[in-house]
Amino acid sequence: MSPSSARITAVDTHDIRFPTSRELDGSDAMNPDPDYSAAYVVLRTDAADGAEGHGFVFTIGRGNEVQVAAIDALREQVLGRSVDELCGDPGSLSRDLTGDSQLRWLGPEKGVMHMAIGAVVNAVWDLAAKRAGKPLWRLLADADPAWLVGQVDFRYITDALTPEEALALLRRGREGAVGRAATLRARGYPAYATSPGWLGYGDEKLTRLAVEAVAAGFRQIKLKVGADLADDMRRCRAARAAVGPDIRIAIDANQRWNVAEAITWTRALAEFRPYWIEEPTSPDDILGHAAIREAVAPVKVATGEHTQNRIVFKQLLQAGSLDILQLDATRVGGVNENLAVLLLAARFGVPVCPHAGGVGLCELVQHLAMFDFVALSGTTDDRVIEYVDHLHGHFTEPVVIRDGHYTAPTAPGFSATMRPESVAEFTYPGGAFWAAELARPKTDDRKGRGA
Amino acid sequence: MSPSSARITAVDTHDIRFPTSRELDGSDAMNPDPDYSAAYVVLRTDAADGAEGHGFVFTIGRGNEVQVAAIDALREQVLGRSVDELCGDPGSLSRDLTGDSQLRWLGPEKGVMHMAIGAVVNAVWDLAAKRAGKPLWRLLADADPAWLVGQVDFRYITDALTPEEALALLRRGREGAVGRAATLRARGYPAYATSPGWLGYGDEKLTRLAVEAVAAGFRQIKLKVGADLADDMRRCRAARAAVGPDIRIAIDANQRWNVAEAITWTRALAEFRPYWIEEPTSPDDILGHAAIREAVAPVKVATGEHTQNRIVFKQLLQAGSLDILQLDATRVGGVNENLAVLLLAARFGVPVCPHAGGVGLCELVQHLAMFDFVALSGTTDDRVIEYVDHLHGHFTEPVVIRDGHYTAPTAPGFSATMRPESVAEFTYPGGAFWAAELARPKTDDRKGRGA
Repeated sequence: MSPSSARITAVDTHDIRFPTSRELDGSDAMNPDPDYSAAYVVLRTDAADGAEGHGFVFTIGRGNEVQVAAIDALREQVLGRSVDELCGDPGSLSRDLTGDSQLRWLGPEKGVMHMAIGAVVNAVWDLAAKRAGKPLWRLLADADPAWLVGQVDFRYITDALTPEEALALLRRGREGAVGRAATLRARGYPAYATSPGWLGYGDEKLTRLAVEAVAAGFRQIKLKVGADLADDMRRCRAARAAVGPDIRIAIDANQRWNVAEAITWTRALAEFRPYWIEEPTSPDDILGHAAIREAVAPVKVATGEHTQNRIVFKQLLQAGSLDILQLDATRVGGVNENLAVLLLAARFGVPVCPHAGGVGLCELVQHLAMFDFVALSGTTDDRVIEYVDHLHGHFTEPVVIRDGHYTAPTAPGFSATMRPESVAEFTYPGGAFWAAELARPKTDDRKGRGA
Repeated sequence: MSPSSARITAVDTHDIRFPTSRELDGSDAMNPDPDYSAAYVVLRTDAADGAEGHGFVFTIGRGNEVQVAAIDALREQVLGRSVDELCGDPGSLSRDLTGDSQLRWLGPEKGVMHMAIGAVVNAVWDLAAKRAGKPLWRLLADADPAWLVGQVDFRYITDALTPEEALALLRRGREGAVGRAATLRARGYPAYATSPGWLGYGDEKLTRLAVEAVAAGFRQIKLKVGADLADDMRRCRAARAAVGPDIRIAIDANQRWNVAEAITWTRALAEFRPYWIEEPTSPDDILGHAAIREAVAPVKVATGEHTQNRIVFKQLLQAGSLDILQLDATRVGGVNENLAVLLLAARFGVPVCPHAGGVGLCELVQHLAMFDFVALSGTTDDRVIEYVDHLHGHFTEPVVIRDGHYTAPTAPGFSATMRPESVAEFTYPGGAFWAAELARPKTDDRKGRGA
């Protein structure tokens, strides 16, 4: 593409909420009634091709407006930037935003402000991939290893991974990449199914959905646990009976337990041969996860969807706290920080099984996992991307699942673009859906929902 | 006080910013030009005595509006609550806000959302202390140990501290409390002076202020380091020469270094006998701090002002990462979580030296340290509260320093109330100061300041 003088001309934000709490989709031991939401950002440009960059933070309802305010706080630092410069080096924006001395106080590198930075940085990668005419996974897989290393912020992680080590990992990852890209296009990337196991579903629905998932080609399902041990035992027994001995069943406590409870509870469920226990305790408890992992083996420990940044991931790996690293596309500071996380995982030989579901997380994480397969770890052994059959129709390039696998995206970009009709209808509180909903007389049942 | 039917009738928020970057007050290796700010909240009631609860989050400029938006997001959960119930059990509000399943996604328990909860919870404690007619330190020191234990959220910390252990610590703390309260009233609580050592100050100013601090009764000063080693050596040498061998000099890197740099740099400064090295690396790096501490002894390691919650403090103590725990009044979820932190520190026998300065942090933390002395740790040995001579005049009950000690507050409340004239003048962007400032023609020098 020839050089252009195009600039970022607008940073538009949208508070989008879907009323998912109505069906108890997404219900778990910590999140009984989420309204899956997105603080959505569109970078507009004056480029001749009209290209835009789209990104978002996934939230679960209340507070989505705070997340939007945090993205708004970044606007002045993004407006007017050169599109060529941004797309040629997204890391420069990532460093400027993460390093802003005043905004940094609000984290640093965690929570609302850091996720806002992640949304804007991801939108830049979406723009870069669109302008390169490639899906993001290919942009990353085709990139020069030295350039990729330059996209990573090594501050605070050099005791576990140096730039030289990262370069060696990426160079090794390039060996055989062409063949793996062909394999990926032919077979896709393995997925597992979370939809059967929401805590709010009855046993009959759980069993039926589990059988359907296996019939659809999934080799792993996941059940939410942690509210009541007797219920969990009954549900695990039903699921194991439904899927047979060869399908992996992961269980997910969504941070419900103290360390000692996590050990007792997981051991009590061990007879059903869970493959991993996910988020057994606080995502901040590095040492707690290490103690749990030692106590519950051979059940594996998985965590990461709430891990705030590369510095905590580094320590989870250093301390031997996890068997499975579950990165999230919108929790950390965007693609640049997730490159650091993928490199750390590769350095420690820990498989990455991304967190997905929510709003658009499947759409985003598939690119990161596919890049990892093609050009970094080089394998899908013991690796699966979470899949939830949920809200994909709101995206212009929804994920495509075939025989329990994510199909490799071919459209240019990061698959982050939401359909304009969906944005209009579910904007909170003024979109058509919410305007009608909020005009209805209130009942106790609806109290506080989405507000 | 007789039961009342009073309720919370309003949750007013204010975006207040002071133009401190003009003088390089507060400048350090990570924060070259802070505009010290507060996201300020006032809980109004219809109580007959007109009592209000005041609280705030300290920030350093840009993004203060995001912090205000986060406090606004809590309004609906606070309005209409019974004043008696809130003041009789602030922990119930603390648990409701921290546990809100939708807001929790934005942390959990970290960053902008968690600090917002802290501001509201602290405002409730201010209200409770005002209605009890006591300064907060006395309210806490006089409280029944079992009630105090009930104010603590033990989720995720029971592997280090159980409620039973906390109760035993508080009961032991009550022995001799009356005598210590008298000592406190007579002598105050020891302070140390940070004002001499801002990175932006020249050597002459540093030396003069250090000599003045010692003459004023301070037995410890602090220097900012981390931008340039040769400068740091020159500044440490000058400070040591100015104060002599018996005054403690702390050094503070404000998170500037990787682990290996922290070790090298601190060892290079060891000849000037620094008492502690503060924030040598990322506040999230529990294992990194432990490695640094082992390598730089006998220089002590201090951290905590950016520690996001009790779960990270727990691990810093478990891993032997620090010699000095520097709690902050507005970083965590308010007084309730700081009770957990003080109890954890007491359990591990680690001295607490609170972080202060900023806007109103001195006013708040003195209450926590004084409670700790009177009714928990029972000592001020090796304990000092940071003191910065800065912005106190904006508060209705500013701290009083005598002979290098904080004087015990006697006015009812948490010393959190800002003068209405200051709120009016420094509200951003509409207050008199900023309206005039923003109307001035822009120059490069002022670009981005406060915006």
